[in-house]
Amino acid sequence: MTTESMPFAEYVRARRALVDEHLERWLPAPPACPAVIGGAMRYSLLGGGKRFRPILTLAAAEEIAAHEWLRRPSDQGLTLDDAVRFAMPAACAIEMIHTYSLVHDDLPAMDNDSLRRGRPTSHVVHGEGMAILAGDGLLSEAFSLLARVPEGDGPAVLERRMRTIAVIAEAAGPVGMVGGQAIDLEAARPGQGVGPSTFDLESLRRMHSCKTGALIRASAVAGAIMAGALPRAVDAVSDYAVQLGLAFQIVDDILDVEGDTSELGKTAGKDAAAGKPTYPALVGLDRSRELAREAHDAAVAALAQVGIGTGRLHDIASWVVSRTN
Amino acid sequence: MTTESMPFAEYVRARRALVDEHLERWLPAPPACPAVIGGAMRYSLLGGGKRFRPILTLAAAEEIAAHEWLRRPSDQGLTLDDAVRFAMPAACAIEMIHTYSLVHDDLPAMDNDSLRRGRPTSHVVHGEGMAILAGDGLLSEAFSLLARVPEGDGPAVLERRMRTIAVIAEAAGPVGMVGGQAIDLEAARPGQGVGPSTFDLESLRRMHSCKTGALIRASAVAGAIMAGALPRAVDAVSDYAVQLGLAFQIVDDILDVEGDTSELGKTAGKDAAAGKPTYPALVGLDRSRELAREAHDAAVAALAQVGIGTGRLHDIASWVVSRTN
Repeated sequence: MTTESMPFAEYVRARRALVDEHLERWLPAPPACPAVIGGAMRYSLLGGGKRFRPILTLAAAEEIAAHEWLRRPSDQGLTLDDAVRFAMPAACAIEMIHTYSLVHDDLPAMDNDSLRRGRPTSHVVHGEGMAILAGDGLLSEAFSLLARVPEGDGPAVLERRMRTIAVIAEAAGPVGMVGGQAIDLEAARPGQGVGPSTFDLESLRRMHSCKTGALIRASAVAGAIMAGALPRAVDAVSDYAVQLGLAFQIVDDILDVEGDTSELGKTAGKDAAAGKPTYPALVGLDRSRELAREAHDAAVAALAQVGIGTGRLHDIASWVVSRTN
Repeated sequence: MTTESMPFAEYVRARRALVDEHLERWLPAPPACPAVIGGAMRYSLLGGGKRFRPILTLAAAEEIAAHEWLRRPSDQGLTLDDAVRFAMPAACAIEMIHTYSLVHDDLPAMDNDSLRRGRPTSHVVHGEGMAILAGDGLLSEAFSLLARVPEGDGPAVLERRMRTIAVIAEAAGPVGMVGGQAIDLEAARPGQGVGPSTFDLESLRRMHSCKTGALIRASAVAGAIMAGALPRAVDAVSDYAVQLGLAFQIVDDILDVEGDTSELGKTAGKDAAAGKPTYPALVGLDRSRELAREAHDAAVAALAQVGIGTGRLHDIASWVVSRTN
């Protein structure tokens, strides 16, 4: 697992494989889990995906482990392997939550999409009712995984796990992702008071800071917490991730305009067709690219504040603004 | 809050009011929570309901507090008020999870019901998409509430809270409630391999032990854990609650046949009309009543094993078999 000297693309592949292996291992299986729901959950969770959020969690934990002045005195002996091991349940729980949100967003009553991660969406394959339940199952299972305390966890690790659950649950819920999705849904319903025409850049930013930003922030913060980061280090990672999430969303909007359905693995051009507010629609493509670059730079500056120089979190910020899917 | 000498009906009213007050207080509010999702969550959560599960949580905590030989040595000074205070977040989280499950079960893609707790269902009022999100929000918020650690919680209370989260998350997820709902949904889909005709009493029992039994068991167990119960006391409360959940479900099936829509607050006769497997359909009304009584007696016997005589948990068992809504 010595990944320090790996090129970034190789690091991403290695971490993605490790996440996939743990997701597979930690998903509930028969006989305790009925085959019908277990199958629907696996279909969406193990059917590809960039694994951006869990890789961010692991990278944040590794950065904290690599800089001893960012850790609590009691965590001075932490190795990179320890950091990855401590952060892995959070990384996998966040991927479960992200996947549940995709399954529910794709439903006919929401975005009504039939393609995701290059395959038919859950409700197309399993029916609407089972897709709703698969999402519910993934969300519940995320917290079950986070709360299963390994034997021998001391009070310090227990306290970190509890803070991690709090951070992730808040980011997933009505003041985070679910709230952002509700604003988005309301904006798409004509005559309900918040049509796209009333969306300015500030409203758009607020919606996205809930809908995608909150969980991206929680991904990085959870990794930092589980690696024993000092409060100021958690704050810096949080500031970094807020900007990273903003850059991620702007690039998502740009790709919806410029991207290719087969490369994206989801339907391109959909937001524009639905008349949804997007960055390119509001400020144009050129200005959108500038805003993404500014957010990237602000993310990197937040890391510099606590002395985190080049490293995986920097690499991830570059990845986000240069990605094509 | 001196409730020890209250008649049971009065105790239930007092606890219900206390639960309602805390649900109201702990629900996220604007500006952090967008009004549109907050409103949909409140509509379902605060719109009536027996509060059976949270009252069970509080009663279990109070029973443990009332019997010092059932508690860990470190919890000898626990008062009834302490027990209620420690157990209240779990009680409210479980009611949020129960409510989310009703909102999702009522959706057109599931049971397609338009009446719940005497009012139009969430999707009728807020639309399908927002009803899905309101359920998602309630489920996330339940875990957010459980993980918000009050200042000054020591390691012992922290450990109990973590075990409580694990118990509740498992009961809510694919090996519990979501799994049972998936079996139920599959059974209602003709030609999918598990039609009602293939349901015998054992299959029915298994489905219900997941769909309703798991969360009822978790309600009681969470209360016992939060009051510092010894492992054998947790086990006894768990055995009690498994039988209680069984009795609850059999009575639910009987009320679906015999009950009145206006008193039930939900559509009566629905399961029979949908050709769903029920206890009366499989063994008749008389035998169903006998089975409910046997489960009641087994519940009470489990309490007797650890020296819990008359008290609120007994009262709750009597309530379950004699209820009319």
